[in-house]
Amino acid sequence: MTTPGRREALRELLRAAELDALLITDLVNVRYLSGFSGSNAALVVHAEDTIGDERRTRLATDGRYTEQAASEVPDLGRVIERSCDRALVTAAGHDGVRRLGFESGHVTVDAHAALGEVADGVTLVRAPGLPQRLRAVKDDTEIELLRAACTSADAALADLIDTGGLRPGRTERQVAFELEQRMREHGAQGPSFDTIVAAGAHSAIPHHQPTDAVLAQGDLVKMDFGALRDGYHSDMTRTVVLGRAADWQRELYELVARAQAAGREALGVGVELSAVDGAARTVIADAGRGPEFPHGLGHGVGLEIHEAPALAATGAGTLSAGMAVTVEPGVYLAGRGGVRIEDTLVVRPEGAELLTLTGKELRELV
Amino acid sequence: MTTPGRREALRELLRAAELDALLITDLVNVRYLSGFSGSNAALVVHAEDTIGDERRTRLATDGRYTEQAASEVPDLGRVIERSCDRALVTAAGHDGVRRLGFESGHVTVDAHAALGEVADGVTLVRAPGLPQRLRAVKDDTEIELLRAACTSADAALADLIDTGGLRPGRTERQVAFELEQRMREHGAQGPSFDTIVAAGAHSAIPHHQPTDAVLAQGDLVKMDFGALRDGYHSDMTRTVVLGRAADWQRELYELVARAQAAGREALGVGVELSAVDGAARTVIADAGRGPEFPHGLGHGVGLEIHEAPALAATGAGTLSAGMAVTVEPGVYLAGRGGVRIEDTLVVRPEGAELLTLTGKELRELV
Repeated sequence: MTTPGRREALRELLRAAELDALLITDLVNVRYLSGFSGSNAALVVHAEDTIGDERRTRLATDGRYTEQAASEVPDLGRVIERSCDRALVTAAGHDGVRRLGFESGHVTVDAHAALGEVADGVTLVRAPGLPQRLRAVKDDTEIELLRAACTSADAALADLIDTGGLRPGRTERQVAFELEQRMREHGAQGPSFDTIVAAGAHSAIPHHQPTDAVLAQGDLVKMDFGALRDGYHSDMTRTVVLGRAADWQRELYELVARAQAAGREALGVGVELSAVDGAARTVIADAGRGPEFPHGLGHGVGLEIHEAPALAATGAGTLSAGMAVTVEPGVYLAGRGGVRIEDTLVVRPEGAELLTLTGKELRELV
Repeated sequence: MTTPGRREALRELLRAAELDALLITDLVNVRYLSGFSGSNAALVVHAEDTIGDERRTRLATDGRYTEQAASEVPDLGRVIERSCDRALVTAAGHDGVRRLGFESGHVTVDAHAALGEVADGVTLVRAPGLPQRLRAVKDDTEIELLRAACTSADAALADLIDTGGLRPGRTERQVAFELEQRMREHGAQGPSFDTIVAAGAHSAIPHHQPTDAVLAQGDLVKMDFGALRDGYHSDMTRTVVLGRAADWQRELYELVARAQAAGREALGVGVELSAVDGAARTVIADAGRGPEFPHGLGHGVGLEIHEAPALAATGAGTLSAGMAVTVEPGVYLAGRGGVRIEDTLVVRPEGAELLTLTGKELRELV
């Protein structure tokens, strides 16, 4: 879907919410709805403008981005002004907007007060998460960008292992850096978040940051990483063993792998988000390891590394075709080691399609 | 200064604002005041706790970070709870807090409403930017971390140029990637922001993102980049010419260099922020190029790439010893090319100390 199509879909939501317009200040949403990728901007979209006649829909940015805005957003009016949000609220008042939605999950208390000062005749209405609802369902272009990002990560890990980059004596930091370098060699603009490489007892820390700790024979090595391509984020975790796996490592791995498979198989159109989490969690709880799986099963992924929908026990709502999500159960034995296995997938009418293609059998690197 | 000392300095501000406690939700401020570096946390600091007896000052984070919090914040009480901010507001109520400040420049309208639901007997008071006021003045440890980050960037640029990495035929993206790689080789954990490499006419775009555009003989090449080390950000811009500079390039360069020197020389304890901007801006305006310098002169830098103080025409307040700032005038001739020269400096009683040491003479790479 092109950006005019996305704005038209947003207009449906505005009409349903009885809003005359929406002020968009979350830069990720600005990018999704307009194509603008600079670091200071706001957008206003009106319920009653139509495709091809977007007279009042406007992008605001500052003087650093005059040329970039003209090139990325040729189809909309542009306002050059440092206080983008205030400029658009003022303009909305002149355009006759009465009920102006704002992203109340993004606008701060102070920013809201500042908008109130220029909202002459305009009522600011809390309207959280409307573009996010559209973003949760990916169009074909977005899925291909996600697929490309996942391919960069798959290829980087394959290179790392094939060239012997995962071996005793290297540090977590060296491995993380090499993964990021190799993702770039395979087309990534950069990592999609801070790469996690956690060896030995560190693997029991769910979000461990790489240190100068040295990988040792017998270690579990957990790698959680992703590639950023054209704004889209991939996300994958694999855990390997350096040398032959001890029995407890093998048992732990197989438990997490079964839970991950159960989570993947639970993905389907119309399925409750909490039920997907439950499908994987039950496997771990039945093995008596429930407390050692202390996080949700997964999350939506796209223009942000974490976005709607949340696959968690508290997740409300159901899956739709085109949603891109991670499935990433983990079990962490404090002081010993942990295993997490994570894929990025797209929900399809017939089930789920894997975008991260690296195998998930237990790898013993000998 | 250690984190207990920072919390004690914050208590002075709380008493002056007649707050019983402050809820800190901005993760950068949480890190500054507690040492915790995870991705989900909140902190509450009470006006009347004292160093060594911080009975009520508490960090909240979620189950992913139980071990990391114990290791990074051994000296404070810890609450493990997914909704960190709500958990601490509830606890503050039990602790008898009546006036609880919150970071109204960071807390969203929706998050504020959610806090209100659990603020039983507690009044939430807007209190923006208190830790930021402390952070604007760096202690010696922070200055050494900034210096180390600047050294990584200096060394990376020297390597890039010495090995012939800046030459016609390479792309902007290749140069940006190499700068980032070399910063890591020189101790950086990563770039401190998305590296800008802008060649030829692209150099006239103040915040250009690197593309596959190929560097050509005669191009101005503007590089704005920095290194991240232990949470601290460096920031430097250099502009070079590939080959001999044309007259207009040399004139442009010398104008910006004079303005940058004027800005640096204006730095001093007690000087108005707007006066520093003015010192550089006057040089450019006197040359008839005022409209082609469309951004502020500089900004504070530390745990964030942009923080207090702002060196801009609208900047209110004065410089203090220990503030770390950038000075970065630029002049951009649309369609032709632009020059920006930027250093990171620390304000000292006797003037300003350069942390970025790369030379600023016009470099013609032949």
